[in-house]
Amino acid sequence: MIRQITGARCTLCGAVTEAHPETTVCPKCGGILDIEYDYDYIRSKVSKYDLMDRGDPTMWRYMEFLPVEGIGKTPRLRVGGSPLLRADHLAREIGLNGPLYIKDDGQNPTASLKDRASAMAVVKAEEAGKTTIACSSTGNAASSLAGNAARAGFKTFIFVPSRAPKGKVAQLMIFGAKVILVEGSYEDTFRLSAEAIDHFGWYNRNAAINPYLMEGKKTVSLEIGEQLSFKAPDYVAVSVGDGCTIAGVWKGFKDLYAAGLLDRLPRLISVQAEGCCPINTAAAAHTLDWVPQEENTIADSIAVGVPRNPVKALKAIEESHGVTVNVSDEEILAAMRLVGRTSGVFAEPAGATGTAGLKKALEQGLIERDASVVSLVTGNGLKDVANAIRSAGEPLQLPPDMDRLLQALSS
Amino acid sequence: MIRQITGARCTLCGAVTEAHPETTVCPKCGGILDIEYDYDYIRSKVSKYDLMDRGDPTMWRYMEFLPVEGIGKTPRLRVGGSPLLRADHLAREIGLNGPLYIKDDGQNPTASLKDRASAMAVVKAEEAGKTTIACSSTGNAASSLAGNAARAGFKTFIFVPSRAPKGKVAQLMIFGAKVILVEGSYEDTFRLSAEAIDHFGWYNRNAAINPYLMEGKKTVSLEIGEQLSFKAPDYVAVSVGDGCTIAGVWKGFKDLYAAGLLDRLPRLISVQAEGCCPINTAAAAHTLDWVPQEENTIADSIAVGVPRNPVKALKAIEESHGVTVNVSDEEILAAMRLVGRTSGVFAEPAGATGTAGLKKALEQGLIERDASVVSLVTGNGLKDVANAIRSAGEPLQLPPDMDRLLQALSS
Repeated sequence: MIRQITGARCTLCGAVTEAHPETTVCPKCGGILDIEYDYDYIRSKVSKYDLMDRGDPTMWRYMEFLPVEGIGKTPRLRVGGSPLLRADHLAREIGLNGPLYIKDDGQNPTASLKDRASAMAVVKAEEAGKTTIACSSTGNAASSLAGNAARAGFKTFIFVPSRAPKGKVAQLMIFGAKVILVEGSYEDTFRLSAEAIDHFGWYNRNAAINPYLMEGKKTVSLEIGEQLSFKAPDYVAVSVGDGCTIAGVWKGFKDLYAAGLLDRLPRLISVQAEGCCPINTAAAAHTLDWVPQEENTIADSIAVGVPRNPVKALKAIEESHGVTVNVSDEEILAAMRLVGRTSGVFAEPAGATGTAGLKKALEQGLIERDASVVSLVTGNGLKDVANAIRSAGEPLQLPPDMDRLLQALSS
Repeated sequence: MIRQITGARCTLCGAVTEAHPETTVCPKCGGILDIEYDYDYIRSKVSKYDLMDRGDPTMWRYMEFLPVEGIGKTPRLRVGGSPLLRADHLAREIGLNGPLYIKDDGQNPTASLKDRASAMAVVKAEEAGKTTIACSSTGNAASSLAGNAARAGFKTFIFVPSRAPKGKVAQLMIFGAKVILVEGSYEDTFRLSAEAIDHFGWYNRNAAINPYLMEGKKTVSLEIGEQLSFKAPDYVAVSVGDGCTIAGVWKGFKDLYAAGLLDRLPRLISVQAEGCCPINTAAAAHTLDWVPQEENTIADSIAVGVPRNPVKALKAIEESHGVTVNVSDEEILAAMRLVGRTSGVFAEPAGATGTAGLKKALEQGLIERDASVVSLVTGNGLKDVANAIRSAGEPLQLPPDMDRLLQALSS
């Protein structure tokens, strides 16, 4: 047993079980588990000053808050330590008078926040004595697993629906992943992956089933806390799909607070696409009873009609006295341009969605204009160039003639 | 005058002029300039221990080696500080017995080494009192300029041939760059940009014309030196296009050596594509008389038939007792898979070209099998997904049926 962990508590029935590296869902009711910690112990082991003195710039600098004892000598990618950029130009343009920061998690090795979860999955797989890791995904979860596993010398099997874009599949294969294109729906794909994981005894990196993934994701908030000198912002804007990320963001802040390293807790701004917002719909009604929805949005990383971690996400929004905002695809595309132009950060659609929601929350008076805010960019725009083209508009085109150029620029 | 700079020396006629922020080519002969430093002064100002104690993880931690006095309070992207990854799996596969490291410069903010040059261009533009920066490029130079300039609040005009891929143009526009699609060849485009830069007095970020760009690029070697505890590797493998990068890499090592911070100088492995290798052809013949070539390679970032910095590049290869290797497109595509699978690093074709050349140099006995080597990855594979698809091969495809999966995996 790892000293700082006290157990794994079911988010549905509340039962507590011991946390093993292969612990997945609740043995009693099948609910999603949440790793619990001994914060008195953590508090006795680490102070603000200890953290600030550490050389390691990666997510592993927060070892006392993580469900691992160490990460051994296996090679790792450099995950975490992403920049927190003060964004005064952006604040001015959206009418925020308080300080605004962009946490650019698109700067992770495979260009998304999911690297934090996959890096954790690889370490836990190693603890469990596995040599192969599997998941079903076409998106950032898959590419981050493939990259982090390749670096550590693990084999990966990744199940994707056969309609998956060729570019995304190619990235996985470059990392040496064995990709299985399943002729069927996402449900079919998921089911086949689950059966194969069972059959072969592979390590399971399917989101929401594996409680350790969120423990990796929460490091983004540990970093934000430290980067803001352990003073919480008033709000943190996060785009929401299956709910794992916002739940992880919340847990990171709660951990810091529980260990006495944060002055207070921020409020979450939960941003979903208007075309697919089951979590925000339930959150706004203060209920855990969410209703599945269609997946009508260009922001594929958060196009999740049947969220896999709704309970943790809804509890996080409720506990933080959160704000919910839904944004249109047009607002998302505009936010991509806005963030790029004012801050030099290229975000994928889901990556710019948090900022789109922040802008709208200000317009609608849902948050105060003098608030301090962190807007989380969850993935790099290079992941989805097709939508960048949709967002960008048309350039100026002309013959190689100076007079024509002067004319065009003066008009 | 900045204290550590002694002047700007012409690489053709040898004349030395004063270095101003807007200094471009030699006023006497039009040759490319090279910024020169007072190494006794640098040596008196900075030691290994000073460097190791610095908190700043960016390229600006090497301030004493750079042609700037500071970078002021303007917002900056976090350029530099890219990981140096020990790559034992890769070494084993290519038959290298000595230590091998990948310097992953695809981890820069806009995903290429060119961020180092553009970050420098923005600071020098600011020094020169400019508010607009321009260049002609479709590639990494352009996107890095657009991103770094956006963050600092500069306007950018970027001239690209109208045949440029829409995705690359879109990235520039997301960063707020004013993109001008020129109906003509690259030469036409370059000429119109030069005329407009002259007319409007914009800051010029055209490679090879602006000597400060290389001063930014050299920081990659300052980092490698520090990351290897100030012990030089035997070889550094670099892909070569217009010659600016390899010249910058060499200058960084020479600077460290001249300042007494490196034990010796490494040898360069200059790698070009077989279909476009004017610099290697001249280097192998130990002449500065290079001959233009066609541009027949998939590695667009190094497809330069008329290199713009041949003299600096050729001198660098010669001075370092360098090795030249040319690789086929097939070898480049294979190296993308090799680097990805063994190391979890996704490189664009030009980014994997250095490693392709290292492999070939070992096979041909051009370098010793027990050498220590750094292979430089200059750009992220997400920049060029079309070639990742060409490299990746075909995945396994089957119906959602466990028996079919078992059958496929056992065959």
